[in-house]
Amino acid sequence: MNAVTDALPDDPLIIAGRRYRSRLLVGTGKYRDLEETRAAVEASGAEIVTVAIRRTNIGQNPDEPNLLDVLPPDRYTILPNTAGCYSAEDAVRTCRLARELLDGHSLVKLEVLGDEKTLYPDIPETLRAAEILIREGFQVMVYTSDDPVAARRFEEMGCVAVMPLAAPIGSGLGIRNPYNILTIVENAQVPILVDAGVGTASDAAIAMELGCDGVLMNTAIAGAKRPVLMASAMRKAVEAGREAYLAGRIPRKRYAAASSPIDGTFF
Amino acid sequence: MNAVTDALPDDPLIIAGRRYRSRLLVGTGKYRDLEETRAAVEASGAEIVTVAIRRTNIGQNPDEPNLLDVLPPDRYTILPNTAGCYSAEDAVRTCRLARELLDGHSLVKLEVLGDEKTLYPDIPETLRAAEILIREGFQVMVYTSDDPVAARRFEEMGCVAVMPLAAPIGSGLGIRNPYNILTIVENAQVPILVDAGVGTASDAAIAMELGCDGVLMNTAIAGAKRPVLMASAMRKAVEAGREAYLAGRIPRKRYAAASSPIDGTFF
Amino acid sequence: MNAVTDALPDDPLIIAGRRYRSRLLVGTGKYRDLEETRAAVEASGAEIVTVAIRRTNIGQNPDEPNLLDVLPPDRYTILPNTAGCYSAEDAVRTCRLARELLDGHSLVKLEVLGDEKTLYPDIPETLRAAEILIREGFQVMVYTSDDPVAARRFEEMGCVAVMPLAAPIGSGLGIRNPYNILTIVENAQVPILVDAGVGTASDAAIAMELGCDGVLMNTAIAGAKRPVLMASAMRKAVEAGREAYLAGRIPRKRYAAASSPIDGTFF
Amino acid sequence: MNAVTDALPDDPLIIAGRRYRSRLLVGTGKYRDLEETRAAVEASGAEIVTVAIRRTNIGQNPDEPNLLDVLPPDRYTILPNTAGCYSAEDAVRTCRLARELLDGHSLVKLEVLGDEKTLYPDIPETLRAAEILIREGFQVMVYTSDDPVAARRFEEMGCVAVMPLAAPIGSGLGIRNPYNILTIVENAQVPILVDAGVGTASDAAIAMELGCDGVLMNTAIAGAKRPVLMASAMRKAVEAGREAYLAGRIPRKRYAAASSPIDGTFF
Repeated sequence: MNAVTDALPDDPLIIAGRRYRSRLLVGTGKYRDLEETRAAVEASGAEIVTVAIRRTNIGQNPDEPNLLDVLPPDRYTILPNTAGCYSAEDAVRTCRLARELLDGHSLVKLEVLGDEKTLYPDIPETLRAAEILIREGFQVMVYTSDDPVAARRFEEMGCVAVMPLAAPIGSGLGIRNPYNILTIVENAQVPILVDAGVGTASDAAIAMELGCDGVLMNTAIAGAKRPVLMASAMRKAVEAGREAYLAGRIPRKRYAAASSPIDGTFF
Repeated sequence: MNAVTDALPDDPLIIAGRRYRSRLLVGTGKYRDLEETRAAVEASGAEIVTVAIRRTNIGQNPDEPNLLDVLPPDRYTILPNTAGCYSAEDAVRTCRLARELLDGHSLVKLEVLGDEKTLYPDIPETLRAAEILIREGFQVMVYTSDDPVAARRFEEMGCVAVMPLAAPIGSGLGIRNPYNILTIVENAQVPILVDAGVGTASDAAIAMELGCDGVLMNTAIAGAKRPVLMASAMRKAVEAGREAYLAGRIPRKRYAAASSPIDGTFF
Repeated sequence: MNAVTDALPDDPLIIAGRRYRSRLLVGTGKYRDLEETRAAVEASGAEIVTVAIRRTNIGQNPDEPNLLDVLPPDRYTILPNTAGCYSAEDAVRTCRLARELLDGHSLVKLEVLGDEKTLYPDIPETLRAAEILIREGFQVMVYTSDDPVAARRFEEMGCVAVMPLAAPIGSGLGIRNPYNILTIVENAQVPILVDAGVGTASDAAIAMELGCDGVLMNTAIAGAKRPVLMASAMRKAVEAGREAYLAGRIPRKRYAAASSPIDGTFF
Repeated sequence: MNAVTDALPDDPLIIAGRRYRSRLLVGTGKYRDLEETRAAVEASGAEIVTVAIRRTNIGQNPDEPNLLDVLPPDRYTILPNTAGCYSAEDAVRTCRLARELLDGHSLVKLEVLGDEKTLYPDIPETLRAAEILIREGFQVMVYTSDDPVAARRFEEMGCVAVMPLAAPIGSGLGIRNPYNILTIVENAQVPILVDAGVGTASDAAIAMELGCDGVLMNTAIAGAKRPVLMASAMRKAVEAGREAYLAGRIPRKRYAAASSPIDGTFF
């Protein structure tokens, strides 16, 4: 490889057969208004935007402002999600509604939550919903815990992407268990995207440095004091993390002079 | 503030009265050849490049390749450093030589090391050297440990920037004690730049998110498998961290539903 | 409360209606011989010892040394476990065998693993096995991931104790996600015991400081260079952690002078 | 070694030629009254108790309660400290006073603080004070930052023990930079005792597992809701950590099945 020309080559994220240049996926909730939503999404560089069908108007309420007016589906991949669903039935019903509203669009983000406090996913219910949805022809990107066995199970079922949490939704705690994320990445053939828990730019970079294929976030951007600026930060952080991953970081050593990477010690 | 136009305003780094747009400072050692050095520095976007006077030819050896041919002083601020010095006397002598070679240029990075294994700084020797150099009219950017009391002392003496380590030189361990860095930042009037120990992009982002004014690194870029790509990653990571800092991140909470940020617990 | 007499009052661990003074449960595998097993268990102070029915002779092979000779059931609560089972069927069958070998003893530790590499539990299979076992009258202590939703589910089903992992079995990585363990503890009515992943004494103390009711370990003791001494260390660590939990630790602050516990910052 | 009899052999802490069985040193400030002080010290098992000469009556004020009545010097090694001193002169003066009050007793704990907010030590002032005190025949145990170069310097000067901080005094943050503590331990010939920053039992255990010779604390015990119980917890934690250190812990691996300890990854 020529050191001088080792800049990032073509490096697309491929989900369900479609290519994306951006590896940052963003939500559309919690913004002040649609104009702020639009500006933040644009600053983020995201090409996939996720929409909580139960909370966001994409045509269900013809008299109200429609998100798709500021985020047109010919420019963005609209990813309907099942936020707010606590049972497989609710989630499946929500996905069907989304497909109808979006003219047969079959890519969905499935989440089935276990309780209202932690917003942790309910894995058995999510498995059940995923099975039904896949049978019905949906392309399922699935929100899950960071359990490597569950992640593999979702892949085996035919989910097109697996999206383990970094930390509870909206917590901003960053990646609480990098080993689990790494194990999931190492064992996967489908894209792995960290979803939920990112708080700031370095969290997103770390996800990418672990080898994740992308990151999805909403609160970290929408809840920042200056959302549009944070969206820009996240865009750069995801790119930085991806490039660092591909560039091959130096090993961690206790000293430069150490002959081997850290092994005996560990903090 | 208008959410839509809250993009990063003019936000220069000012050192010794001079303005820089880039907050990433890079070293010039350990590259394969001068061409790789040039390409990596360019990809990093750095405007200040530091040069180990004892190891690098900037004119001392007229018959050998000269770093300044690829990094011309009219384009880059050349920051001579005293890498490899283990006493105040050696460091002062090195700075004087640098001033001579660089036509009276008085900005230097002072480092006086305590031992060859850890490459930790020797604070009392560094204090002694800083005192002499400041008296002789140098503008001293000083490499130090992450001790907040030492950092304030260097500022009070008149150092133009204080550069605490993240971790041992070349270790790639990232910021081992963020509280100390934060305390240094909170108490400082001069620029605080993290110097040494950065391993990958997220480390650089974290330094900026803590409120540091900049980051200096060498091994993390030069030692990566693909140095030029890592230089690009670091450029974006520093920008991402700065923007995230200015954008005002969401608080960390155990759950989105929690009424207050984390306090009772802490991991 | 009288400061002078605030020593630990009666503080039993109660599992399935039975009271124990020790909160350290230990495994019996990987020792050099039965004599070392006996000595380590004794030094640990454990009153509950867990036995891998598929690997350990407790009477299945009448001609071989029998673990129960050194750990007599009238002195220890023998806790049969299903280590090595990868399906609900295998686990159920193993529990039935154990009940037979132990004269109708119905307390078991259920584990159903998801793969041979990480030894992570398979939650859906474990749920299935737990359901069958509870129906058949077993008192089930269940090994699970650190997923709070799964933990609650096991409790609701009627498991008598829930045992989330700290880290992969045999990894020695300690508690990788203290927030999850804490969430499980806060929501539980049954005893929560950390099982798997403990590496050294402080790991066990941390588990107890989080409010866990006990800790189960095997490799950390049996794999130490000096197992009997490590068993003693673990005994003291579990007691130390329990006492510290009950004693009410000081809040974490950045400085003693800080008026409030840490909230805005967090590392 | 016989596995069955590998219990802890004779393992004394030796400071300034004197042998101690306990490796936990405790302060005497911040208790409700002398009776609570006495009870907590007793529960801690400490044999060395440190006394802030500027704040505690050990005979300076003949009409007031005297600490030595509840902690008699024939039973405890009284270790006068210079808490509250911000200059070498103050610290030296305080040590001389202590020697007078304690009939020529020459063992002292030196601390010279850098500022009132962080209570971080001022290393150059501490070096100056240590030099004077050693010249005057004191046996100096020195409170310092976790800077390995400073620690070695104090040892070379003739300090009888070096006491790096875990975190700021009274912060309860635990060991913020285990690598620095480990480096100090590895390079030392004199006892290394962690001093300041311990918050709960596991923090003390970790210090010992790193190979420290002992731990000194005050706020963590005196500030707990139940100080006497916390004193007992700390006693056990220090013993647990010491035994675990001597017992030789299992290596950290990502999985039990991994062939080598963790090196490439690190969190």
